Amino acid sequence: MTTLNPSNRTLRLHAPRVLKFHDEPRPAPGPGEVLLEILSVGICRSDLDYYNDGRIGDAVVSEPLVLGHEFSARVIEAGEGVNSSLVGQRVAVEPAVWCNKCEWCLRGDSNLCPAVRFCGTPPIDGALRRYMAYPAEFMAVLPDEISDDAGAVLEPLAIGVHALDLARPRLEQSAAIVGCGPVGLSILQAARAAGAGRLIVLDRLRWRLNLALELGATDAIDVGREDPVAALERMTGGRLVDHVFEAGGTDESPDLSIRLAAPAGKVFLVGIPPGDRINVSAGISRRRGLTVYIVRRSRNTLDRALSMLERGLLNADRLVSHHFPFAESEQAYQMAHNYEDNVVKAIIRVREE
Amino acid sequence: MTTLNPSNRTLRLHAPRVLKFHDEPRPAPGPGEVLLEILSVGICRSDLDYYNDGRIGDAVVSEPLVLGHEFSARVIEAGEGVNSSLVGQRVAVEPAVWCNKCEWCLRGDSNLCPAVRFCGTPPIDGALRRYMAYPAEFMAVLPDEISDDAGAVLEPLAIGVHALDLARPRLEQSAAIVGCGPVGLSILQAARAAGAGRLIVLDRLRWRLNLALELGATDAIDVGREDPVAALERMTGGRLVDHVFEAGGTDESPDLSIRLAAPAGKVFLVGIPPGDRINVSAGISRRRGLTVYIVRRSRNTLDRALSMLERGLLNADRLVSHHFPFAESEQAYQMAHNYEDNVVKAIIRVREE
Amino acid sequence: MTTLNPSNRTLRLHAPRVLKFHDEPRPAPGPGEVLLEILSVGICRSDLDYYNDGRIGDAVVSEPLVLGHEFSARVIEAGEGVNSSLVGQRVAVEPAVWCNKCEWCLRGDSNLCPAVRFCGTPPIDGALRRYMAYPAEFMAVLPDEISDDAGAVLEPLAIGVHALDLARPRLEQSAAIVGCGPVGLSILQAARAAGAGRLIVLDRLRWRLNLALELGATDAIDVGREDPVAALERMTGGRLVDHVFEAGGTDESPDLSIRLAAPAGKVFLVGIPPGDRINVSAGISRRRGLTVYIVRRSRNTLDRALSMLERGLLNADRLVSHHFPFAESEQAYQMAHNYEDNVVKAIIRVREE
Amino acid sequence: MTTLNPSNRTLRLHAPRVLKFHDEPRPAPGPGEVLLEILSVGICRSDLDYYNDGRIGDAVVSEPLVLGHEFSARVIEAGEGVNSSLVGQRVAVEPAVWCNKCEWCLRGDSNLCPAVRFCGTPPIDGALRRYMAYPAEFMAVLPDEISDDAGAVLEPLAIGVHALDLARPRLEQSAAIVGCGPVGLSILQAARAAGAGRLIVLDRLRWRLNLALELGATDAIDVGREDPVAALERMTGGRLVDHVFEAGGTDESPDLSIRLAAPAGKVFLVGIPPGDRINVSAGISRRRGLTVYIVRRSRNTLDRALSMLERGLLNADRLVSHHFPFAESEQAYQMAHNYEDNVVKAIIRVREE
Repeated sequence: MTTLNPSNRTLRLHAPRVLKFHDEPRPAPGPGEVLLEILSVGICRSDLDYYNDGRIGDAVVSEPLVLGHEFSARVIEAGEGVNSSLVGQRVAVEPAVWCNKCEWCLRGDSNLCPAVRFCGTPPIDGALRRYMAYPAEFMAVLPDEISDDAGAVLEPLAIGVHALDLARPRLEQSAAIVGCGPVGLSILQAARAAGAGRLIVLDRLRWRLNLALELGATDAIDVGREDPVAALERMTGGRLVDHVFEAGGTDESPDLSIRLAAPAGKVFLVGIPPGDRINVSAGISRRRGLTVYIVRRSRNTLDRALSMLERGLLNADRLVSHHFPFAESEQAYQMAHNYEDNVVKAIIRVREE
Repeated sequence: MTTLNPSNRTLRLHAPRVLKFHDEPRPAPGPGEVLLEILSVGICRSDLDYYNDGRIGDAVVSEPLVLGHEFSARVIEAGEGVNSSLVGQRVAVEPAVWCNKCEWCLRGDSNLCPAVRFCGTPPIDGALRRYMAYPAEFMAVLPDEISDDAGAVLEPLAIGVHALDLARPRLEQSAAIVGCGPVGLSILQAARAAGAGRLIVLDRLRWRLNLALELGATDAIDVGREDPVAALERMTGGRLVDHVFEAGGTDESPDLSIRLAAPAGKVFLVGIPPGDRINVSAGISRRRGLTVYIVRRSRNTLDRALSMLERGLLNADRLVSHHFPFAESEQAYQMAHNYEDNVVKAIIRVREE
Repeated sequence: MTTLNPSNRTLRLHAPRVLKFHDEPRPAPGPGEVLLEILSVGICRSDLDYYNDGRIGDAVVSEPLVLGHEFSARVIEAGEGVNSSLVGQRVAVEPAVWCNKCEWCLRGDSNLCPAVRFCGTPPIDGALRRYMAYPAEFMAVLPDEISDDAGAVLEPLAIGVHALDLARPRLEQSAAIVGCGPVGLSILQAARAAGAGRLIVLDRLRWRLNLALELGATDAIDVGREDPVAALERMTGGRLVDHVFEAGGTDESPDLSIRLAAPAGKVFLVGIPPGDRINVSAGISRRRGLTVYIVRRSRNTLDRALSMLERGLLNADRLVSHHFPFAESEQAYQMAHNYEDNVVKAIIRVREE
Repeated sequence: MTTLNPSNRTLRLHAPRVLKFHDEPRPAPGPGEVLLEILSVGICRSDLDYYNDGRIGDAVVSEPLVLGHEFSARVIEAGEGVNSSLVGQRVAVEPAVWCNKCEWCLRGDSNLCPAVRFCGTPPIDGALRRYMAYPAEFMAVLPDEISDDAGAVLEPLAIGVHALDLARPRLEQSAAIVGCGPVGLSILQAARAAGAGRLIVLDRLRWRLNLALELGATDAIDVGREDPVAALERMTGGRLVDHVFEAGGTDESPDLSIRLAAPAGKVFLVGIPPGDRINVSAGISRRRGLTVYIVRRSRNTLDRALSMLERGLLNADRLVSHHFPFAESEQAYQMAHNYEDNVVKAIIRVREE
């Protein structure tokens, strides 16, 4: 262990759009923890919100924060009580460390644990650093054929698996997916694997719609070019769809999602809107007797997403559109923030300087 | 039959706050129908909205409309194909006549039937008239011990049963009920019968809270006198409640309901707000992973509500606070509209002139 | 219509293993019915039980019975009230004509309708005849690319869809399928489409296991060659599987199915055993807290099975191993009864003499 | 602490019907544990099976075993890491100590934890001793108004709550309960609290039926005097009931339960039969499309049973028919085993010598 560089290069967000590199001490893994050498870190819309605004709702960056919660790493040291066979393995990391003691954890709703520690969310530091100590039970070992970048994309894929755990569609039930960013595309792939019938995607960026069609959507609606409700009615003979997954994260996407749902439909709000209100039509919701699930992250679905990735049921490679060395993290954030260059998911490779 | 008065005194809403009596011909029951002599008719908040505004959202009174969808009646004639033993029976009437052919009816979601005909809702005439033809399969025979007025209140009680069908609480799960009008009090009683634990009611009218406590609420919050979220937190040690039933029908009650729900909670929006938006906090909903059911009327629950009434598990008498003869219908509407005289449910007795 | 041959060649089962052809009058379609010219009729295990034993449990062939409930047909005449555009169309037929009035039909459990009329089951005549009148609402129109034989296989495929409607697996949950006849293979395909993970098939006929592997099974256990529980434990690291679908129809297969299920597992008994008892280990069932679904046919799933067939998610062609002209029906029954010649599904083409 | 008698009088089962008292050392509570002074211990049917046969299925008493898993106790010492405010409190004890690490614990199915340690079941010693160390998180503090005996009965009451958690009846759905021992009576009370409609009990002991009627059953069937299926058909107009809870624990009661269930019914097998087979009619189960839950103990329901006890929704006192001092434990076992003297639940008061 002594041959490793003890310096721990770390990127911290000090204020909106102010990222600075620091040299910090390398942590030692505590009991039940491992020391991770970070490999690939994805940039998520919520990272960009912290980067740009310094907050998401009432979660505020008040101390300099290390961002990054979608990541792969290599285990380089095992703390007390951890099986040493983990050392040397590459892993994808579950960013939510739940308490496993509260009533929600005890009945399986660990994603709703009020005592959760979620890395990269204030005040818990995330993965944009060389080394990080982490509880050994919150990770999945990556087989050789899964790349570092794919390991980093496992977290959004796991969100798609969780959304489908909530939906549990019957075979051939139809679905619409509002927003084709990485989360929308993850939901799309999970829905296709779960036996959805018609799978209609909506976005205003043509390249994303094309990617969605490539990944299994049956129909696409360009919301910048046609009225999406009218388009869906036309496609479905007026019936609309059984499930709507909102992954657009705009203030308008919840109401649009409501309008796409057939009577008895289920609407899953997965995206995080810029404002802090959900504002939808009461009349449509009531007359159709809709059920609206406001979805919180994912619930222990990393292993299953990995298994689907190995079996070719999910595609991680097509989600990764760009990668950057650690030193160019700021450029990565700026590009992703501005939706430049047909970006889908940008990855920062922390080991590349 | 020839001894019956063929004249059919009928009250129609011509414009907001313009009710007029008419003498209309008595209808003949068609195949599968019975002729009803109307007994008691309840006034519902939605009736008052039509009375006052001439519309609820995009349901507009464009032709003079007979209001009234909560009612009891006596069967006085059986149409072709109807068992004649029904004649002479008193009945409570299911106001929603669903099609029984569409995909929603075929799988039991008859309250979401897009072809439903709901009496007292434009353009279908309701019960504020002496005689009315109605499909024989959409009614429940009242035993002698159930009064005419109780029969009229069966419809809101059935809404309570439906809300609990959706909630299906586990024993001792806690609930809050926002709004203690007749629907809120029906939900309260159904929730108590279904084994809810803590049952906390909220309203700004003290007499309603007292009635709720009498009908089984364990705690009451006067929202005009204290901050309801703080009060609920205090009562529950900060945990909040498992189920929230919104029956307030104000523009603010959905968001208040969200704020009362514990993580993994379920929120049932039963009330009809004056405006046409549901506007709630996105952050709270998401962090708690809430599920929001927007509830549409009731689903074939009249028989079960009647059975509970007979067994003393529901109380209809305490819901009826006032009754008026048919000739004084307008006074009844005005009083109910203004929440005067501690009104809960006002009943119009159509046979009393 | 007058150019059609009015004679209606009909095959009736008079006693165990006694099939006789008759010339019977061609029926006229009643109101709501169509006249069907039968195309392909599949032979099901239950047909073989009636053929061989004259009964299944207390369902006894007491009058000469026309067998056949898996079939495609062409509509050649429309009765009163039926849209004439149906005439000329090829259809797959839903053999269960439910009442649409009882409490089970009203809540969507039409497969449990106590008043159901199921064709080919005593005392309702089935499809092994040239012409048959049938209610127009109980059929699905076949597009050109779906063959007559595939149309006949739609009924067992619909059973697979129904079994998965009950199971509603989460993505990657594992399943075992006990018995790889047409129903087992239908369940297999539906389970694969529904996102099951490991899909392990069990049978004692090698050719069936090979076909199952071809249709999407991930692993096969030859129960004649190895202990199936030990084999499954070896394959799953001792964990066993989440869902077990019993389609073996032997007296032993329910208990075997129980033994394959992991704690909290669900077991679906789809096959019809020769004896009339389900006999399983109480201790294993209890310690694992299993839930056992005893499955009754299918519930209005024909349309969805057809849609999956069109989209290539189900394969009907590989299920049809043999076909016979109508005149050779008896040979077809004998061969299928004896599991000769690697039979999977034998089809009788009624129009071929 | 030093003033306490260090001797720990302990009753062990050495062989079928061979119980012997021993003086054993008093244990010290480990980290996370408390030292309990045992108060009341109930005798369960499974205790009697071990007493009489030395085994239940493949759970064999191979070393001398302390029986007793239904019990109340006083905390007299707190181990490391346990809040000292527990000391002096009376508690009801959860006999199942689950691992909280396996996949079943992590998703809330703790009653199916394969690594569970259940006290009083081989090889884990139970409560028939003066002192016992136990994990502090597996107990519920008893308020003053709950007696020691009621605390001991909380465990069977919690089984009733768990059975209703599985059933989650809709309001007014009907139920039958087969067997009116303590578990059947617990289920009865939980079902009544959960809003069941008709609640029909079956037993062959008249005094138990009378007790059941007193505790809320609406109808009783004496299975020794009339055909139970015919009686239930008569009572329900041939419809039978929605839920059947089997708590008879005979080899015949599962099949009887099946025969009492209406189409789409759910059957909960809670009793433990003497033999190791569940043997039921396949034809009835299939035609009615039944779902059979084989129930394993209870799932973290002690707190809710206690809350219901406090609110008067469950009655523990009427379940306790007899009590014995510790020294007369053998007489207690013999009497309970022989169903003498109208025994319902016999309690051993360990502090009484």
